[in-house]
Amino acid sequence: MGTITNIFIAKIKILKRSSINDPEGNTIAEALNNLGFNDIDSVRIGKYIEITLESKDKRTAEKIVNRMCETLLVNLVIESYQVEINPYIVK
Amino acid sequence: MGTITNIFIAKIKILKRSSINDPEGNTIAEALNNLGFNDIDSVRIGKYIEITLESKDKRTAEKIVNRMCETLLVNLVIESYQVEINPYIVK
Repeated sequence: MGTITNIFIAKIKILKRSSINDPEGNTIAEALNNLGFNDIDSVRIGKYIEITLESKDKRTAEKIVNRMCETLLVNLVIESYQVEINPYIVK
Repeated sequence: MGTITNIFIAKIKILKRSSINDPEGNTIAEALNNLGFNDIDSVRIGKYIEITLESKDKRTAEKIVNRMCETLLVNLVIESYQVEINPYIVK
């Protein structure tokens, strides 16, 4: 499949669209309030996905990850997402 | 409670610690692979939480959000988290 040399890490944040109710977020907001955190305006809960993948460059990685999101990871009818891609650095 | 004037948005990313198995992530990796995305090294799935809150300054907001994470939002035995706090800008 050609020369693939670079490893990238994609950080994907997925949230329900702001027009969509988030009952889980409301429950957490209430629980935090009951614990004494009284200055909360809103809580929204979503998914966070980290994908490490091989790709020839960042632009290509970005395209691939956007396709992953739109094909499988995100339900675009009710969710929106943000992707951030960086070279993967071994810890 | 004094004068609270600033609104901040806290973006919290929660992932299982790397020593902990992530079966949901493995399932997604397999599904993506079956869809033709063959250059994936790993997939980790976690939670993403956005909290808007009122606080006198960013440092205080950061302290409060860290306390929320450690009290309720994150299970520190198996999860780790990252917080990013910014002034809230109305869209």
